[in-house]
Amino acid sequence: MKQKVAVLGAGSWGTALAMVLIENGHDVTIWGHHPEQITEINENHTNKRYLSDVQLPEELKATSELEVCVKDADAVLFVVPTKAIRNVAQKFVEVCHNQPVIIHASKGLEQETHKRISEILIEEIPENKRKDVVVLSGPSHAEEVAVKDVTTITAAAKNLENAEYVQKLFSNEYFRIYTNQDVIGVELGAALKNIIALGSGALHGLGYGDNARAAIMTRGLAEISRLGVAMGADPLTFIGLSGVGDLAVTCTSVHSRNWRAGDLLGKGQSLENVLENMGMIVEGVSTTKAAYELSRDLKIDMPITETIYKVIYENEEVNKVVKEIMLREHKSEQEF
Amino acid sequence: MKQKVAVLGAGSWGTALAMVLIENGHDVTIWGHHPEQITEINENHTNKRYLSDVQLPEELKATSELEVCVKDADAVLFVVPTKAIRNVAQKFVEVCHNQPVIIHASKGLEQETHKRISEILIEEIPENKRKDVVVLSGPSHAEEVAVKDVTTITAAAKNLENAEYVQKLFSNEYFRIYTNQDVIGVELGAALKNIIALGSGALHGLGYGDNARAAIMTRGLAEISRLGVAMGADPLTFIGLSGVGDLAVTCTSVHSRNWRAGDLLGKGQSLENVLENMGMIVEGVSTTKAAYELSRDLKIDMPITETIYKVIYENEEVNKVVKEIMLREHKSEQEF
Repeated sequence: MKQKVAVLGAGSWGTALAMVLIENGHDVTIWGHHPEQITEINENHTNKRYLSDVQLPEELKATSELEVCVKDADAVLFVVPTKAIRNVAQKFVEVCHNQPVIIHASKGLEQETHKRISEILIEEIPENKRKDVVVLSGPSHAEEVAVKDVTTITAAAKNLENAEYVQKLFSNEYFRIYTNQDVIGVELGAALKNIIALGSGALHGLGYGDNARAAIMTRGLAEISRLGVAMGADPLTFIGLSGVGDLAVTCTSVHSRNWRAGDLLGKGQSLENVLENMGMIVEGVSTTKAAYELSRDLKIDMPITETIYKVIYENEEVNKVVKEIMLREHKSEQEF
Repeated sequence: MKQKVAVLGAGSWGTALAMVLIENGHDVTIWGHHPEQITEINENHTNKRYLSDVQLPEELKATSELEVCVKDADAVLFVVPTKAIRNVAQKFVEVCHNQPVIIHASKGLEQETHKRISEILIEEIPENKRKDVVVLSGPSHAEEVAVKDVTTITAAAKNLENAEYVQKLFSNEYFRIYTNQDVIGVELGAALKNIIALGSGALHGLGYGDNARAAIMTRGLAEISRLGVAMGADPLTFIGLSGVGDLAVTCTSVHSRNWRAGDLLGKGQSLENVLENMGMIVEGVSTTKAAYELSRDLKIDMPITETIYKVIYENEEVNKVVKEIMLREHKSEQEF
């Protein structure tokens, strides 16, 4: 059945997801801050800053008025940067007059509180203004989804029925959704993999090869899983799309902003320079801080996260600390 | 302590491993079939067909006489193609007069018997001519090891002491060895990942992107683990270097022969053409047959292996069967 969907966030991922929904016959309005961008989407049917070579469907509407966007929506998809989630949720509450399914496709942990995105949304949106909060996450470059490359991702909700609603909303021939009930694991996998992607990029920037990348991915998966399990996730989630899959796609691809930022760090650029160069939010930078603090609170060994933290926040020389961690003494695989 | 090591097999991996041993100060002789190659290694200190741009250390000796190679060896490393293992082991038994540690770094399953390499070696080499059989395996392109890129791999043996001997033999600043006691898991991970690499290459050849590759890696890991566990492996092994790590390095890199062979298959070349083009053994081709037969015997669902089998052995059209599997109906991640 045709659904009315509000997409909050007009970046590359929001736009690509809105295109999938339009493809599936839904009524979709995308909300963004910048009036020029809204006009560009409505009149030129492009969003060049975020999806440079893509022609958007004419049915995709955009607005900078949040109230217009969410009016009578059956589902509201949050896909804004992590640091904006709480604020956008508060604004949403002011203008929402029904009870939509809340979906989010953002990836990160809140600074200071270390909260997951769904925790923030549940905190800010009263129960009479939402059904469930469903997490949409998995290995996917927006650029590939926009050109209808086959992609498989996860819809996670405690209540399977809501995950299945989201599965139905998005599924089509090229966009495959699998349900999962481990919300904690799916959100943590999505957030934490960006740290490993920064590390994988840094190794590349420093001149290390594919063997070293395989090592950081394997050891990265182990430390993501350790923190995840300590926070209540199902370890099996990390062997699936939200662990192995997500790492595969972000640690090996120039499409990944986090990988590219790491690559530039590895080549010796300063963090300020790197972030300026990217022109988009690099979620892994703030996630590194949150995960590092969590690992200390929970006494979980996360050597890769700690190394990236030192480079980003303590100005340690990337060459030196990466060499240290690559050569760290381990003996058996069980120590991973 | 300086060890005398015989390396049986003068391909790229045997040569790269011999270089690590020389770096570590051991006395190393490499054995190969082709007299011109032996002369090239001894006189020019190169092995251009297998490691085109690499200068070999002058200390590395080569011989085509198996008896000369293994005489008084403390350790014998088998690193020949799977289909040659049994024959080389039989010849080794004839000329071995002491009791060396047997190590192997080959990757595959024997045709017809479906046996792992260590099973073949144990069968063929009587106990008075060997100590343990230790498996050396993990994410590693020979080309990168030869230029001293950081690499992490696994030494697996039932008896930890023997794994530690091999760890000590090979470990240095750029070559990191982790011990593991799950011989079955490490051998199966090494063999089966080549099937997924063929599939990942085929997706690339067909024009699929990074999202699809992440999907095949994730689902590939799941089916490797399913077969592995049914054959007695520890499921945790597949989250480590012999599962995730090995997949990461073979599914994403042009250095991988199996990936390249899959890529050519995806582009529509015939198997005969592909194998001729490669000029080296593509282990994944025969491993696909063994794993397919095993999956049927043990009633394990291995959709990717089955798909590759159909392309290679039943002349099914790659485009058609790959599309079928990518679009196969799955609902929850647990079904993986």
